[in-house]
Amino acid sequence: MLDVCLLGTGGMMPLPRRFLTSLALRFNGRTLLIDCGEGTQVAMKKAGVSPYPIDAICFTHYHADHISGLPGLLLDMGNSDRTEPVHLYGPRGLKRIVSALTVITPQLPFELVCHEYHNDEEIFAVSGIRVRAFRVCHNVICYGYTAEIDRKGRFDADAARSLGIPLEYWHLLQKGQEVGGFVPGQVMGPDRKGLKVTYTTDTRPVRSIEENAAGSDLFICEGMYGDPEKAASAKEKKHMTMQEAAGLASRAGVGELWLTHYSPSMTDPRIYTKELERIFKATTVCRDGWKKELDFTDEGEA
Amino acid sequence: MLDVCLLGTGGMMPLPRRFLTSLALRFNGRTLLIDCGEGTQVAMKKAGVSPYPIDAICFTHYHADHISGLPGLLLDMGNSDRTEPVHLYGPRGLKRIVSALTVITPQLPFELVCHEYHNDEEIFAVSGIRVRAFRVCHNVICYGYTAEIDRKGRFDADAARSLGIPLEYWHLLQKGQEVGGFVPGQVMGPDRKGLKVTYTTDTRPVRSIEENAAGSDLFICEGMYGDPEKAASAKEKKHMTMQEAAGLASRAGVGELWLTHYSPSMTDPRIYTKELERIFKATTVCRDGWKKELDFTDEGEA
Repeated sequence: MLDVCLLGTGGMMPLPRRFLTSLALRFNGRTLLIDCGEGTQVAMKKAGVSPYPIDAICFTHYHADHISGLPGLLLDMGNSDRTEPVHLYGPRGLKRIVSALTVITPQLPFELVCHEYHNDEEIFAVSGIRVRAFRVCHNVICYGYTAEIDRKGRFDADAARSLGIPLEYWHLLQKGQEVGGFVPGQVMGPDRKGLKVTYTTDTRPVRSIEENAAGSDLFICEGMYGDPEKAASAKEKKHMTMQEAAGLASRAGVGELWLTHYSPSMTDPRIYTKELERIFKATTVCRDGWKKELDFTDEGEA
Repeated sequence: MLDVCLLGTGGMMPLPRRFLTSLALRFNGRTLLIDCGEGTQVAMKKAGVSPYPIDAICFTHYHADHISGLPGLLLDMGNSDRTEPVHLYGPRGLKRIVSALTVITPQLPFELVCHEYHNDEEIFAVSGIRVRAFRVCHNVICYGYTAEIDRKGRFDADAARSLGIPLEYWHLLQKGQEVGGFVPGQVMGPDRKGLKVTYTTDTRPVRSIEENAAGSDLFICEGMYGDPEKAASAKEKKHMTMQEAAGLASRAGVGELWLTHYSPSMTDPRIYTKELERIFKATTVCRDGWKKELDFTDEGEA
């Protein structure tokens, strides 16, 4: 239902076998992208993610490794005959940065609509996904994201029949509309468990992450370093170690943890897998192109 | 002596197995780069070309596929503790474009010095290489480049001895300086054949290319299309077919031709090799990372 693809897993700079961290969320044929560093358009081609249906690109912050791929991706979208507006979301300064970077993309066949955040928390809907941007703690203003798909309660056909509701009203009630004197509450069960993905990178393991990630099916988080000797460096540079990320996942009670945004100095981040599983069992030290289709479960059904 | 590495061979957009066209020329431990599209820093890592000793980056023009990799490469150079200024050369508008793109690289530890071209031909020296930028014909202002290494004549030790020139003067005369009443012409033979590389992309096959490429050891040229049906498209978009490039190589009398800047629509440009060799025998339909060390020959020695 919700297709999640971690296009790259690199931090700081792209490497021959490691694209920069970027996330594609695909739902009902539309795509939401989070972060877009140099080479993201190539990572998308490699992963089979089309640029055409991207409704929006959300940025965590404007360090080059999270936004330098924007001009190339926009041109790629233009080449695919895209004409609908593309929405860009990010911290204050977005318009200035986008207008600077697009100096080399002068004739895009679509409009760019910039949405800047002015609060510590911002909620909006895009591609059928409810997105929450929330402040995290980096050396520049930086946000994390939750992406949620809500799921309505089950429709009770027996109740509808016994109430004598005409068939042509059923789909309207299912959509949450009142019709012919009937209200959805008469035939719809309580909301069922939807889907929730949280994405944070370039941040210390602050409480806002734990709170926002709580109950996520999937928590995607930076794991800049694995070596305990780098813990001080992570703190100083406002990044996070893999162990800190696993600790967050455990405290937030998420379904699973995917690690990403590795320092170029870590040639094989997977050597830390066993240690991390002791902190949080369902940890994956991801590689580029890691993907999963998240489906609704039947838990919480009426 | 002159190490030539074609970092990528793609035009328009980078592909999973094709970096964008960029050329590294290495001479005496220093590097000159021509063009820098998205992913060039990765292509350099893959090809083993260090960003540290880059003295200058020359641009043919400012379409994104030739400059979008600049911010990432500059950051990479900054991370390698580079502090010497980096020189950027290109058509008018360079300062504006560079100052826009570097909005995401705010704290580089070195100075950027921009040199804009104001004439159809500009000559300068960088990394011990004599560079000539010359106007070509694209749909925006675009330049081609020749890179030449000059080679002085042979020192005639017998003549120096018979003229009674003290030994301590010899190296000064070899450097072209007058000393103690002696002049270089008394002991130096005529200039010998040096090395010459010509690079042109994003242009129709105009006469300025033929004239400037004349006598090059190596001519690197765009071959956007191979299919004869694309000839009209090449003309319209101000690009060149592989066959036109081979024709230019033949007329300019170059040593060898390397093709690059392939349309993403050409999945295997090498299928045209045989046909191209009939137009110009020493043609290589290059792949990413193609490299060669050009050495001085003994031809033309005194």
